[in-house]
Amino acid sequence: MAAAFLNQTSKPERLDEKRSEILDFIEQQKQVDRKVVLVTSGGTTVPLESKTVRFIDNFSVGSRGAASTEYPFYSSKSRTCTRILKYESETCDHTKGYAVVFLHRNRSLKPFLRHLSTYNFLDLLELDGENQDAPVKVKSEHQKRLSSILRDYEQVQRDRSLLWVEFQSLSEYLHLLQMCSTCLQGLGKSAMLYLAAAVADFYIPKDQMPEHKIQSAEGPLQLSLQLVPKMLEPLVKEWVPEAFVVSFKLETNKDILVSKSLQALDKYQHQLVIANLLETRKREVKLVTTDNCVDISMTTEELSSGHEIEEKIVRELASLHSKFCSPDGH
Amino acid sequence: MAAAFLNQTSKPERLDEKRSEILDFIEQQKQVDRKVVLVTSGGTTVPLESKTVRFIDNFSVGSRGAASTEYPFYSSKSRTCTRILKYESETCDHTKGYAVVFLHRNRSLKPFLRHLSTYNFLDLLELDGENQDAPVKVKSEHQKRLSSILRDYEQVQRDRSLLWVEFQSLSEYLHLLQMCSTCLQGLGKSAMLYLAAAVADFYIPKDQMPEHKIQSAEGPLQLSLQLVPKMLEPLVKEWVPEAFVVSFKLETNKDILVSKSLQALDKYQHQLVIANLLETRKREVKLVTTDNCVDISMTTEELSSGHEIEEKIVRELASLHSKFCSPDGH
Repeated sequence: MAAAFLNQTSKPERLDEKRSEILDFIEQQKQVDRKVVLVTSGGTTVPLESKTVRFIDNFSVGSRGAASTEYPFYSSKSRTCTRILKYESETCDHTKGYAVVFLHRNRSLKPFLRHLSTYNFLDLLELDGENQDAPVKVKSEHQKRLSSILRDYEQVQRDRSLLWVEFQSLSEYLHLLQMCSTCLQGLGKSAMLYLAAAVADFYIPKDQMPEHKIQSAEGPLQLSLQLVPKMLEPLVKEWVPEAFVVSFKLETNKDILVSKSLQALDKYQHQLVIANLLETRKREVKLVTTDNCVDISMTTEELSSGHEIEEKIVRELASLHSKFCSPDGH
Repeated sequence: MAAAFLNQTSKPERLDEKRSEILDFIEQQKQVDRKVVLVTSGGTTVPLESKTVRFIDNFSVGSRGAASTEYPFYSSKSRTCTRILKYESETCDHTKGYAVVFLHRNRSLKPFLRHLSTYNFLDLLELDGENQDAPVKVKSEHQKRLSSILRDYEQVQRDRSLLWVEFQSLSEYLHLLQMCSTCLQGLGKSAMLYLAAAVADFYIPKDQMPEHKIQSAEGPLQLSLQLVPKMLEPLVKEWVPEAFVVSFKLETNKDILVSKSLQALDKYQHQLVIANLLETRKREVKLVTTDNCVDISMTTEELSSGHEIEEKIVRELASLHSKFCSPDGH
């Protein structure tokens, strides 16, 4: 089903080039004994026409994925993100810190850069003088904020621990997900997959899609959409059978949230589902495993002082992944 | 039809506040005898659920609207945009320059800022030193580019000739379009409307929309979409009957492009349609009026030296609008 879908849709451009880039990146991480997490982020588009004018998209701007990507780089003993306050009870070194392959929707929120998303960047700058050669400088009132963000960003650049891969459509995403996942096979258990992308459930097969822009002169429109085959199945069974796989479940109806998460774990046999409701997803999530359900939440004080739920999620997952990799504690 | 649609959909937040802001802006432009153009830009979204997880969107990232907005500020005798080369044959002063109300899709391309859209903004900056207090500065290799963009942006800020208004959904857009248009009534003929936004043709009425996220467990999906009433009709007849109204026609099939443009002019009785094909829209457009069709195109040399078709479009429209305002040439 999934295989047939992938065969019927065209591959993204420069797939082989991207595969080489990812394999090189993974090799570099092996050299420094760093775990790797594939973070997927943002929504996928489903075209309604071949010469695409319209498409179905979703609410996801990539907040979860972009925020989460800022935290796995750090461990309790390594250089800590300048914006995370240390937790008092932190004693054990979960990890050396991760490298991240960030498979994200184009133009969605990006790690580090997202902290400037409410600004027009040009408002952060000014010309230092009247003449033609006057240099551009950062306005003094924005120095502190930019300095903090840039410091973390530059560290990740120096460490070469973040690789960016873009997608837009559903079919691009699925091909790239398959490609990134199979590249991670060589890492065995030390690969984590953090599947935060909001993947379309419905699509129009190419042979049922009109070629040209649908005309409004033809009156009201009926659309028939087929189900997208679930990729978690081949992902867990074939692409990265040894990896620590975390998927997400987002609902608007709280009555079905946990039951759907347990159904997914039972069906796909992966490690964990992060369950959340659309309206409260920045404040509370549930980490659902087959035998446990951990509530993670943020107090109003924590949120207003700039903390994010993704700090806690990543910390918890790093700990669980560490146990997954070394169940005997070695 | 249009009125019923507007009555049935909820108004955007803070509509009265935005109305006051726009009326003040227009008043300021009257004081300095500046014409005003309402530029609409980007695509509108059509939700599929009340608690919206999915929506229909379109290809438009706002290139046309954002690019066009950079040019109406300038006249041949005023301070010229630093990036436009003067055309040799320019002799007449079409205009004092316009003020722009930029009614745009949130997160779509913005005038001036769009020139940085291929960059991660953080890559343009660096920390000047190792210590905690090291200032953030612009990398020297990006100074020239930023300086040019910032100079034009700062001029527009000083002139207070650009007002930003955001929308996302179809219903927000239509309410804001009505509001902005009616605010422009007081300017009579000296108002231009440049309707570059890609407005949805189909939507799901609120009472036919499911409340919660549509479940994939229920199988393939059938969607029934109604036609969106055409707003050009009330816009031209009631909201801004005296203004110079320019709409756009985008098609993928060149055989119907001009005929559809003429049909629109005949139906809505506005001034001009800018007709373009999806695939060639940055290289060629047609300015269609009831008795003329002007082809505007860009050579490869012009495009590769950084010119844009919007420079020519705006120049031509400023000239036509000037004649529209003073048909006797006074």
